[in-house]
Amino acid sequence: MVTAVGDGTDAGQATVDLLGVLAYGELSAFDRLAEDARHAPTLSGRAALSSMAAAEIGHFRMLEEHLGGIGVPVETAMAPFVETLNRYHASTAPRSWLESLVKAYLGDGLAADFYREVAGWMSGPTGELVRHVLADTGHSAFAEREVRAACEADRKVHDRLALWGRRLLGEAVTQAQYVVAERDELAEFIVTGSGDVSGIGALLKRLQSNHGKRMSRLGLS
Amino acid sequence: MVTAVGDGTDAGQATVDLLGVLAYGELSAFDRLAEDARHAPTLSGRAALSSMAAAEIGHFRMLEEHLGGIGVPVETAMAPFVETLNRYHASTAPRSWLESLVKAYLGDGLAADFYREVAGWMSGPTGELVRHVLADTGHSAFAEREVRAACEADRKVHDRLALWGRRLLGEAVTQAQYVVAERDELAEFIVTGSGDVSGIGALLKRLQSNHGKRMSRLGLS
Repeated sequence: MVTAVGDGTDAGQATVDLLGVLAYGELSAFDRLAEDARHAPTLSGRAALSSMAAAEIGHFRMLEEHLGGIGVPVETAMAPFVETLNRYHASTAPRSWLESLVKAYLGDGLAADFYREVAGWMSGPTGELVRHVLADTGHSAFAEREVRAACEADRKVHDRLALWGRRLLGEAVTQAQYVVAERDELAEFIVTGSGDVSGIGALLKRLQSNHGKRMSRLGLS
Repeated sequence: MVTAVGDGTDAGQATVDLLGVLAYGELSAFDRLAEDARHAPTLSGRAALSSMAAAEIGHFRMLEEHLGGIGVPVETAMAPFVETLNRYHASTAPRSWLESLVKAYLGDGLAADFYREVAGWMSGPTGELVRHVLADTGHSAFAEREVRAACEADRKVHDRLALWGRRLLGEAVTQAQYVVAERDELAEFIVTGSGDVSGIGALLKRLQSNHGKRMSRLGLS
Protein backbone atom coordinates (compact mmCIF):
# COMPACT_ATOMS: atom_id res chain seq x y z
CA MET A 1 0.00 0.00 0.00
CA VAL A 2 2.86 2.39 0.77
CA THR A 3 3.71 2.60 -2.93
CA ALA A 4 0.35 4.23 -3.51
CA VAL A 5 1.19 7.12 -1.19
CA GLY A 6 0.86 10.46 -2.87
CA ASP A 7 -0.67 9.40 -6.14
CA GLY A 8 -3.96 10.86 -4.96
CA THR A 9 -6.14 8.23 -6.57
CA ASP A 10 -5.51 4.95 -4.78
CA ALA A 11 -4.84 6.28 -1.33
CA GLY A 12 -2.85 3.97 0.89
CA GLN A 13 -3.63 3.67 4.55
CA ALA A 14 -0.42 5.56 5.35
CA THR A 15 -1.61 8.61 3.38
CA VAL A 16 -4.99 8.51 5.09
CA ASP A 17 -3.29 8.17 8.48
CA LEU A 18 -0.94 11.00 7.77
CA LEU A 19 -3.67 13.37 6.60
CA GLY A 20 -5.82 12.22 9.53
CA VAL A 21 -3.21 12.96 12.15
CA LEU A 22 -2.44 16.32 10.53
CA ALA A 23 -6.15 17.17 10.42
CA TYR A 24 -6.73 16.35 14.06
CA GLY A 25 -3.52 18.19 14.89
CA GLU A 26 -5.03 21.30 13.29
CA LEU A 27 -8.43 20.88 14.92
CA SER A 28 -7.01 20.32 18.39
CA ALA A 29 -4.50 23.17 17.99
CA PHE A 30 -7.43 25.40 17.07
CA ASP A 31 -9.21 24.41 20.23
CA ARG A 32 -6.23 25.03 22.48
CA LEU A 33 -5.24 28.32 20.87
CA ALA A 34 -8.81 29.59 21.11
CA GLU A 35 -8.91 28.63 24.78
CA ASP A 36 -5.54 30.31 25.41
CA ALA A 37 -6.64 33.43 23.52
CA ARG A 38 -9.35 33.91 26.13
CA HIS A 39 -6.68 34.52 28.76
CA ALA A 40 -4.77 37.13 26.77
CA PRO A 41 -3.89 40.20 28.83
CA THR A 42 -4.64 42.56 25.92
CA LEU A 43 -7.07 42.74 23.02
CA SER A 44 -4.09 42.65 20.60
CA GLY A 45 -2.83 39.46 22.19
CA ARG A 46 -6.26 37.95 22.01
CA ALA A 47 -6.61 38.88 18.34
CA ALA A 48 -3.15 37.49 17.53
CA LEU A 49 -3.74 34.11 19.15
CA SER A 50 -7.29 33.93 17.77
CA SER A 51 -5.85 34.51 14.29
CA MET A 52 -3.35 31.71 14.75
CA ALA A 53 -6.26 29.49 15.78
CA ALA A 54 -8.29 30.48 12.74
CA ALA A 55 -5.38 29.68 10.43
CA GLU A 56 -5.37 26.11 11.76
CA ILE A 57 -8.95 25.73 10.60
CA GLY A 58 -8.00 26.94 7.13
CA HIS A 59 -5.47 24.09 7.00
CA PHE A 60 -7.97 21.66 8.47
CA ARG A 61 -10.46 22.48 5.71
CA MET A 62 -7.88 21.77 3.00
CA LEU A 63 -7.07 18.40 4.50
CA GLU A 64 -10.76 17.60 4.90
CA GLU A 65 -11.44 18.45 1.26
CA HIS A 66 -8.54 16.37 0.03
CA LEU A 67 -9.58 13.38 2.12
CA GLY A 68 -13.15 13.79 0.85
CA GLY A 69 -11.79 13.68 -2.68
CA ILE A 70 -10.25 10.26 -2.04
CA GLY A 71 -13.46 9.04 -0.43
CA VAL A 72 -12.49 9.23 3.24
CA PRO A 73 -14.54 11.32 5.70
CA VAL A 74 -12.12 13.44 7.73
CA GLU A 75 -13.73 12.19 10.98
CA THR A 76 -12.81 8.60 10.05
CA ALA A 77 -9.24 9.55 9.24
CA MET A 78 -8.84 11.54 12.48
CA ALA A 79 -10.45 9.06 14.85
CA PRO A 80 -7.35 6.91 15.60
CA PHE A 81 -5.35 9.98 16.67
CA VAL A 82 -7.81 11.82 18.88
CA GLU A 83 -6.70 10.21 22.12
CA THR A 84 -2.95 10.65 21.62
CA LEU A 85 -3.21 14.28 20.56
CA ASN A 86 -5.59 15.07 23.39
CA ARG A 87 -3.05 13.50 25.74
CA TYR A 88 -0.31 15.73 24.31
CA HIS A 89 -2.41 18.84 24.89
CA ALA A 90 -3.50 17.73 28.37
CA SER A 91 0.11 17.13 29.38
CA THR A 92 1.20 20.52 28.01
CA ALA A 93 -1.63 22.78 29.15
CA PRO A 94 -0.09 26.27 29.48
CA ARG A 95 -0.29 27.80 32.96
CA SER A 96 0.28 31.37 31.81
CA TRP A 97 -0.14 33.64 28.85
CA LEU A 98 3.58 33.46 28.04
CA GLU A 99 3.52 29.66 28.13
CA SER A 100 0.60 29.81 25.68
CA LEU A 101 2.57 32.00 23.30
CA VAL A 102 5.66 29.80 23.52
CA LYS A 103 3.60 26.67 22.91
CA ALA A 104 1.75 28.20 19.96
CA TYR A 105 4.97 29.44 18.37
CA LEU A 106 7.05 26.31 18.90
CA GLY A 107 4.18 23.95 18.12
CA ASP A 108 3.40 25.71 14.87
CA GLY A 109 7.05 25.62 13.86
CA LEU A 110 7.47 21.97 14.74
CA ALA A 111 4.37 21.02 12.78
CA ALA A 112 5.58 23.03 9.79
CA ASP A 113 8.97 21.29 9.92
CA PHE A 114 7.30 17.92 9.98
CA TYR A 115 5.02 18.82 7.07
CA ARG A 116 8.06 19.98 5.13
CA GLU A 117 9.89 16.69 5.66
CA VAL A 118 6.85 14.64 4.69
CA ALA A 119 6.09 16.76 1.63
CA GLY A 120 9.56 15.89 0.34
CA TRP A 121 8.64 12.20 0.29
CA MET A 122 5.38 12.66 -1.57
CA SER A 123 4.58 13.43 -5.15
CA GLY A 124 1.26 14.22 -6.80
CA PRO A 125 -1.67 16.11 -5.30
CA THR A 126 -1.11 14.88 -1.74
CA GLY A 127 2.44 16.21 -1.72
CA GLU A 128 1.25 19.52 -3.15
CA LEU A 129 -1.46 19.74 -0.51
CA VAL A 130 1.01 19.15 2.30
CA ARG A 131 3.34 21.81 0.88
CA HIS A 132 0.40 24.19 0.65
CA VAL A 133 -0.72 23.59 4.24
CA LEU A 134 2.84 24.48 5.26
CA ALA A 135 2.23 28.13 4.64
CA ASP A 136 3.18 30.14 7.69
CA THR A 137 0.27 31.43 9.72
CA GLY A 138 2.09 34.77 9.76
CA HIS A 139 1.47 35.72 13.37
CA SER A 140 4.78 34.54 14.74
CA ALA A 141 6.27 38.03 14.96
CA PHE A 142 3.83 38.83 17.75
CA ALA A 143 4.93 35.85 19.87
CA GLU A 144 8.62 36.62 19.27
CA ARG A 145 8.19 40.21 20.37
CA GLU A 146 6.15 39.44 23.50
CA VAL A 147 8.21 36.50 24.75
CA ARG A 148 11.52 38.23 24.06
CA ALA A 149 10.47 41.33 25.98
CA ALA A 150 9.26 39.29 28.95
CA CYS A 151 12.51 37.29 29.04
CA GLU A 152 14.67 40.40 28.87
CA ALA A 153 12.71 41.96 31.71
CA ASP A 154 12.97 39.01 34.08
CA ARG A 155 15.60 36.28 34.15
CA LYS A 156 13.37 33.91 36.15
CA VAL A 157 10.71 34.16 33.46
CA HIS A 158 13.38 33.35 30.89
CA ASP A 159 14.54 30.27 32.80
CA ARG A 160 11.05 28.91 33.33
CA LEU A 161 10.06 29.43 29.69
CA ALA A 162 13.31 27.86 28.44
CA LEU A 163 12.48 24.75 30.47
CA TRP A 164 8.94 24.84 29.13
CA GLY A 165 10.14 25.05 25.54
CA ARG A 166 12.38 22.02 25.97
CA ARG A 167 9.63 20.05 27.65
CA LEU A 168 7.25 20.74 24.75
CA LEU A 169 9.63 19.09 22.29
CA GLY A 170 10.05 16.11 24.60
CA GLU A 171 6.30 15.62 24.97
CA ALA A 172 5.73 16.00 21.24
CA VAL A 173 8.33 13.36 20.42
CA THR A 174 6.93 11.00 23.07
CA GLN A 175 3.40 11.27 21.75
CA ALA A 176 4.57 10.99 18.13
CA GLN A 177 6.21 7.70 19.06
CA TYR A 178 2.92 6.42 20.47
CA VAL A 179 1.16 7.36 17.23
CA VAL A 180 3.68 5.61 15.04
CA ALA A 181 3.86 2.52 17.27
CA GLU A 182 0.15 1.93 16.76
CA ARG A 183 -0.01 2.47 13.00
CA ASP A 184 2.06 -0.02 11.05
CA GLU A 185 1.66 1.47 7.59
CA LEU A 186 2.39 4.95 8.85
CA ALA A 187 5.54 3.67 10.57
CA GLU A 188 6.61 1.96 7.35
CA PHE A 189 5.91 5.11 5.38
CA ILE A 190 8.08 7.18 7.71
CA VAL A 191 10.91 4.64 7.68
CA THR A 192 10.77 4.44 3.88
CA GLY A 193 10.48 8.22 3.53
CA SER A 194 13.34 9.08 5.81
CA GLY A 195 15.51 6.34 4.29
CA ASP A 196 15.88 3.86 7.13
CA VAL A 197 15.99 3.72 10.90
CA SER A 198 19.10 5.92 11.00
CA GLY A 199 17.24 8.26 8.66
CA ILE A 200 14.63 8.68 11.38
CA GLY A 201 17.40 9.61 13.79
CA ALA A 202 18.62 12.24 11.34
CA LEU A 203 15.07 13.53 10.90
CA LEU A 204 14.68 13.89 14.66
CA LYS A 205 17.98 15.76 14.82
CA ARG A 206 16.82 18.22 12.17
CA LEU A 207 13.57 18.79 14.07
CA GLN A 208 15.51 19.35 17.30
CA SER A 209 17.92 21.71 15.64
CA ASN A 210 15.14 23.85 14.17
CA HIS A 211 13.33 23.80 17.49
CA GLY A 212 16.51 25.17 19.08
CA LYS A 213 16.69 27.96 16.51
CA ARG A 214 13.12 28.93 17.25
CA MET A 215 13.89 28.94 20.98
CA SER A 216 16.68 31.41 20.23
CA ARG A 217 14.35 33.65 18.25
CA LEU A 218 12.11 33.77 21.32
CA GLY A 219 15.12 34.77 23.40
CA LEU A 220 15.15 31.37 25.11
CA SER A 221 18.68 30.29 24.34
CA MET B 1 -18.53 64.30 11.26
CA VAL B 2 -21.33 62.04 10.04
CA THR B 3 -21.03 63.48 6.57
CA ALA B 4 -17.53 61.98 6.39
CA VAL B 5 -18.82 58.47 6.95
CA GLY B 6 -17.78 56.11 4.24
CA ASP B 7 -15.39 58.31 2.33
CA GLY B 8 -12.53 56.28 3.77
CA THR B 9 -10.15 59.19 4.14
CA ASP B 10 -11.53 61.46 6.85
CA ALA B 11 -13.12 58.84 9.06
CA GLY B 12 -15.85 60.13 11.30
CA GLN B 13 -16.27 58.82 14.80
CA ALA B 14 -19.42 57.00 13.69
CA THR B 15 -17.45 54.98 11.13
CA VAL B 16 -14.81 54.12 13.67
CA ASP B 17 -17.50 53.14 16.18
CA LEU B 18 -19.31 51.04 13.67
CA LEU B 19 -16.19 49.18 12.54
CA GLY B 20 -15.14 48.84 16.18
CA VAL B 21 -18.38 47.27 17.30
CA LEU B 22 -18.36 44.96 14.28
CA ALA B 23 -14.75 43.97 15.00
CA TYR B 24 -15.39 43.16 18.63
CA GLY B 25 -18.55 41.38 17.56
CA GLU B 26 -16.41 39.11 15.38
CA LEU B 27 -13.73 38.58 18.01
CA SER B 28 -16.21 37.75 20.76
CA ALA B 29 -18.25 35.52 18.45
CA PHE B 30 -15.02 33.66 17.65
CA ASP B 31 -14.39 33.13 21.33
CA ARG B 32 -17.87 31.83 22.04
CA LEU B 33 -18.09 29.59 19.00
CA ALA B 34 -14.69 28.08 19.79
CA GLU B 35 -15.82 27.43 23.35
CA ASP B 36 -19.08 25.88 22.14
CA ALA B 37 -17.23 23.76 19.57
CA ARG B 38 -15.43 22.06 22.45
CA HIS B 39 -18.74 20.60 23.62
CA ALA B 40 -19.75 19.19 20.24
CA PRO B 41 -21.01 15.61 20.44
CA THR B 42 -19.23 14.62 17.21
CA LEU B 43 -16.00 15.52 15.40
CA SER B 44 -18.09 16.80 12.46
CA GLY B 45 -20.00 19.11 14.75
CA ARG B 46 -16.79 20.32 16.30
CA ALA B 47 -15.27 20.98 12.88
CA ALA B 48 -18.40 22.80 11.68
CA LEU B 49 -18.56 25.16 14.66
CA SER B 50 -14.78 25.66 14.65
CA SER B 51 -15.03 26.67 10.99
CA MET B 52 -17.73 29.20 11.79
CA ALA B 53 -15.45 30.59 14.50
CA ALA B 54 -12.50 30.81 12.10
CA ALA B 55 -14.61 32.69 9.56
CA GLU B 56 -15.27 35.39 12.18
CA ILE B 57 -11.54 35.96 12.46
CA GLY B 58 -11.30 36.37 8.70
CA HIS B 59 -13.85 39.18 8.99
CA PHE B 60 -12.09 40.60 12.02
CA ARG B 61 -8.82 40.84 10.10
CA MET B 62 -10.47 42.79 7.27
CA LEU B 63 -11.95 45.26 9.73
CA GLU B 64 -8.62 45.57 11.54
CA GLU B 65 -6.79 46.26 8.29
CA HIS B 66 -9.31 48.87 7.19
CA LEU B 67 -9.18 50.62 10.56
CA GLY B 68 -5.39 50.53 10.43
CA GLY B 69 -5.59 52.19 7.01
CA ILE B 70 -7.47 55.15 8.50
CA GLY B 71 -5.02 55.35 11.39
CA VAL B 72 -7.07 53.73 14.14
CA PRO B 73 -5.77 50.66 16.02
CA VAL B 74 -8.53 48.07 16.11
CA GLU B 75 -8.10 47.75 19.90
CA THR B 76 -8.93 51.44 20.33
CA ALA B 77 -12.00 51.16 18.12
CA MET B 78 -13.24 48.05 19.92
CA ALA B 79 -12.64 49.19 23.48
CA PRO B 80 -15.95 51.05 24.06
CA PHE B 81 -17.95 47.97 23.07
CA VAL B 82 -16.21 45.20 24.96
CA GLU B 83 -18.38 45.39 28.05
CA THR B 84 -21.73 45.46 26.27
CA LEU B 85 -20.90 42.59 23.94
CA ASN B 86 -19.48 40.52 26.77
CA ARG B 87 -22.75 41.16 28.63
CA TYR B 88 -24.72 39.91 25.63
CA HIS B 89 -22.70 36.70 25.51
CA ALA B 90 -22.83 36.19 29.26
CA SER B 91 -26.60 36.57 29.26
CA THR B 92 -26.96 34.13 26.36
CA ALA B 93 -24.48 31.41 27.27
CA PRO B 94 -25.78 28.21 25.63
CA ARG B 95 -26.56 25.37 28.02
CA SER B 96 -26.50 22.66 25.37
CA TRP B 97 -25.01 21.81 22.02
CA LEU B 98 -28.30 22.55 20.24
CA GLU B 99 -28.55 25.94 21.94
CA SER B 100 -25.01 26.63 20.68
CA LEU B 101 -25.98 25.78 17.13
CA VAL B 102 -29.13 27.89 17.27
CA LYS B 103 -27.20 30.85 18.68
CA ALA B 104 -24.43 30.54 16.09
CA TYR B 105 -26.90 30.31 13.23
CA LEU B 106 -29.26 33.08 14.34
CA GLY B 107 -26.45 35.34 15.55
CA ASP B 108 -24.57 35.04 12.28
CA GLY B 109 -27.73 35.79 10.33
CA LEU B 110 -28.67 38.77 12.46
CA ALA B 111 -25.18 40.23 12.16
CA ALA B 112 -25.25 39.73 8.37
CA ASP B 113 -28.63 41.49 8.15
CA PHE B 114 -27.32 44.40 10.15
CA TYR B 115 -24.18 44.65 7.99
CA ARG B 116 -26.37 44.60 4.89
CA GLU B 117 -28.51 47.50 6.12
CA VAL B 118 -25.48 49.56 7.11
CA ALA B 119 -23.65 48.85 3.85
CA GLY B 120 -26.61 50.37 2.04
CA TRP B 121 -25.97 53.72 3.81
CA MET B 122 -22.29 53.86 3.04
CA SER B 123 -20.36 54.60 -0.09
CA GLY B 124 -16.65 54.29 -0.81
CA PRO B 125 -14.20 51.79 0.62
CA THR B 126 -15.93 51.46 4.00
CA GLY B 127 -19.20 50.50 2.36
CA GLU B 128 -17.40 48.01 0.13
CA LEU B 129 -15.63 46.53 3.13
CA VAL B 130 -18.87 46.07 5.02
CA ARG B 131 -20.47 44.41 2.00
CA HIS B 132 -17.45 42.13 1.72
CA VAL B 133 -17.52 41.12 5.38
CA LEU B 134 -21.15 40.15 4.79
CA ALA B 135 -20.14 37.03 2.92
CA ASP B 136 -21.85 34.01 4.41
CA THR B 137 -19.64 31.79 6.52
CA GLY B 138 -21.13 28.88 4.56
CA HIS B 139 -21.58 26.46 7.41
CA SER B 140 -25.23 27.18 8.05
CA ALA B 141 -26.46 24.02 6.33
CA PHE B 142 -24.96 21.98 9.15
CA ALA B 143 -26.86 23.87 11.85
CA GLU B 144 -30.13 23.69 9.88
CA ARG B 145 -29.83 19.94 9.45
CA GLU B 146 -28.91 19.20 13.07
CA VAL B 147 -31.45 21.47 14.73
CA ARG B 148 -34.26 20.43 12.40
CA ALA B 149 -33.63 16.74 13.05
CA ALA B 150 -33.56 17.27 16.82
CA CYS B 151 -36.80 19.27 16.73
CA GLU B 152 -38.58 16.68 14.62
CA ALA B 153 -37.51 13.94 17.00
CA ASP B 154 -38.70 15.65 20.17
CA ARG B 155 -41.42 18.27 20.54
CA LYS B 156 -40.10 19.43 23.92
CA VAL B 157 -36.69 20.14 22.37
CA HIS B 158 -38.49 22.14 19.67
CA ASP B 159 -40.40 24.21 22.21
CA ARG B 160 -37.35 24.98 24.33
CA LEU B 161 -35.25 25.95 21.31
CA ALA B 162 -38.04 28.11 19.88
CA LEU B 163 -38.12 30.03 23.16
CA TRP B 164 -34.32 30.28 23.10
CA GLY B 165 -34.34 31.66 19.54
CA ARG B 166 -36.82 34.36 20.48
CA ARG B 167 -34.86 35.27 23.60
CA LEU B 168 -31.66 35.69 21.58
CA LEU B 169 -33.27 38.37 19.42
CA GLY B 170 -34.59 40.15 22.50
CA GLU B 171 -31.19 40.18 24.19
CA ALA B 172 -29.46 41.35 21.01
CA VAL B 173 -31.88 44.27 20.59
CA THR B 174 -31.53 45.21 24.27
CA GLN B 175 -27.74 45.27 24.14
CA ALA B 176 -27.74 47.10 20.79
CA GLN B 177 -29.83 49.82 22.43
CA TYR B 178 -27.23 50.17 25.20
CA VAL B 179 -24.50 50.54 22.59
CA VAL B 180 -26.34 53.21 20.65
CA ALA B 181 -27.43 55.09 23.79
CA GLU B 182 -23.79 55.59 24.76
CA ARG B 183 -22.44 56.65 21.37
CA ASP B 184 -23.98 59.87 20.10
CA GLU B 185 -22.41 59.90 16.65
CA LEU B 186 -23.24 56.27 16.06
CA ALA B 187 -26.85 56.93 17.07
CA GLU B 188 -27.00 59.91 14.71
CA PHE B 189 -25.49 57.82 11.92
CA ILE B 190 -28.13 55.14 12.36
CA VAL B 191 -30.98 57.64 12.53
CA THR B 192 -29.67 59.38 9.40
CA GLY B 193 -29.02 56.10 7.63
CA SER B 194 -32.38 54.57 8.32
CA GLY B 195 -34.15 57.84 7.45
CA ASP B 196 -35.57 58.93 10.80
CA VAL B 197 -36.87 57.48 14.06
CA SER B 198 -39.68 55.67 12.25
CA GLY B 199 -37.00 54.38 9.87
CA ILE B 200 -35.36 52.69 12.85
CA GLY B 201 -38.67 51.05 13.66
CA ALA B 202 -38.88 49.77 10.09
CA LEU B 203 -35.28 48.52 10.30
CA LEU B 204 -36.05 46.61 13.49
CA LYS B 205 -39.10 45.08 11.82
CA ARG B 206 -37.00 43.86 8.90
CA LEU B 207 -34.46 42.33 11.29
CA GLN B 208 -37.28 40.63 13.22
CA SER B 209 -38.87 39.32 10.06
CA ASN B 210 -35.62 37.81 8.78
CA HIS B 211 -34.93 36.35 12.20
CA GLY B 212 -38.35 34.67 12.00
CA LYS B 213 -37.51 33.23 8.60
CA ARG B 214 -34.28 31.78 9.95
CA MET B 215 -36.19 30.28 12.88
CA SER B 216 -38.44 28.55 10.33
CA ARG B 217 -35.46 27.18 8.45
CA LEU B 218 -34.28 25.64 11.72
CA GLY B 219 -37.71 24.06 12.15
CA LEU B 220 -38.51 26.47 15.00
CA SER B 221 -41.71 28.02 13.69
